[in-house]
Amino acid sequence: MKTHAAIKFNVPEPTLRRLPWYLAYAQLIQREGEQYLSSTQIAKNLSVDASRVAKDLSYVKISGRTRVGYEVNELVRVLNAFLGFSNRHKAFLFGVGNLGGALMHDNGLAQFGLEIIAGFDAKYELTGTSINHIPIHHIHRFAELQKQMNVSVGILTVPVERAQGVADMLVEGGIKAVWNFTPFRIRVSEDVVVQNTSIYANLAVMFNRLNELTELTKR
Amino acid sequence: MKTHAAIKFNVPEPTLRRLPWYLAYAQLIQREGEQYLSSTQIAKNLSVDASRVAKDLSYVKISGRTRVGYEVNELVRVLNAFLGFSNRHKAFLFGVGNLGGALMHDNGLAQFGLEIIAGFDAKYELTGTSINHIPIHHIHRFAELQKQMNVSVGILTVPVERAQGVADMLVEGGIKAVWNFTPFRIRVSEDVVVQNTSIYANLAVMFNRLNELTELTKR
Repeated sequence: MKTHAAIKFNVPEPTLRRLPWYLAYAQLIQREGEQYLSSTQIAKNLSVDASRVAKDLSYVKISGRTRVGYEVNELVRVLNAFLGFSNRHKAFLFGVGNLGGALMHDNGLAQFGLEIIAGFDAKYELTGTSINHIPIHHIHRFAELQKQMNVSVGILTVPVERAQGVADMLVEGGIKAVWNFTPFRIRVSEDVVVQNTSIYANLAVMFNRLNELTELTKR
Repeated sequence: MKTHAAIKFNVPEPTLRRLPWYLAYAQLIQREGEQYLSSTQIAKNLSVDASRVAKDLSYVKISGRTRVGYEVNELVRVLNAFLGFSNRHKAFLFGVGNLGGALMHDNGLAQFGLEIIAGFDAKYELTGTSINHIPIHHIHRFAELQKQMNVSVGILTVPVERAQGVADMLVEGGIKAVWNFTPFRIRVSEDVVVQNTSIYANLAVMFNRLNELTELTKR
């Protein structure tokens, strides 16, 4: 098995990040009742280079018609499937604190193919409670429930000092992808996917830009 | 006024995205009761190049001592201030749907300097209700409440087809930074900050990597 960093994935990450924009735009056009959508139209409306849109869509198995473009319903269906949004990925969430609880409230995740079927926490007072009809178990029950349910995705929203330890436990239990919301850079074996999503890093960038623009405006 | 894209910001975005990792690690070390932390130690533990850590920290006004490194409490305090996490930025949230409601539940944001003081939605049945003690108003009241409260940050969690229209309204009302959680690429005037955070784009990347690794393992 090659190390994760050394694996050459088929679809580049920037492409995977742009495809949801095209999907969102196609869905907008779909709701407006249009039948066809061209890559030039996508490019123009999203301010992305037209050749980049065409290249991105070349990874997706869909063919457009010259001059008219892609059939909108087909484009929406194919993009949803390609991005994994029409699959049903079961997930366990670890750390039912502020952010963890918030994610359990977000029914939108299920529409994008991710279904949180249980939360786990080390706090005994949370055991047996639920959020948004999702049960919360004590973290000691993870191994047992994982054996029954064989969940592939683990959402990590524990405090920083628990991040590596809990990640190790997930991988040991057979979790194949860790969605890491902690600001800690966890390390896992090479056959496990780590997706880092740092909401607070985005905040840091936004605050800095806001300050710098405010300074510029004052001059 | 220069266009936003043309503005040369002082601190590079990758640096702003890494600094919260260093902060998280420093806080971990702080809780373990250590007094000093060196950039080499940060580099080693977070698998970042040591010269990169030193360069990143050079943007922050803090000086370390040769051999012993940074005083941990000081590093935590200075990084929190530098990243804007110890300020209090007031925010309005627009679109109290799944994700919007989830963000209103996340008390963690306040710890990182962002306080959501009201939600707005076009649905009349939400008017007068609240989530996590944060009041929800009809979107028609935005201009009036913005005049009273002079909020700088707008969180955008509306449906895709409303994204541009609501963003225009925010900017018109004097919002200076838009935290855009929609997959739509909104366009605003050059003196307004847009921070795009697409949770679902991260999901797309994770699902794809999970699939590709599963395929590799099968071979």
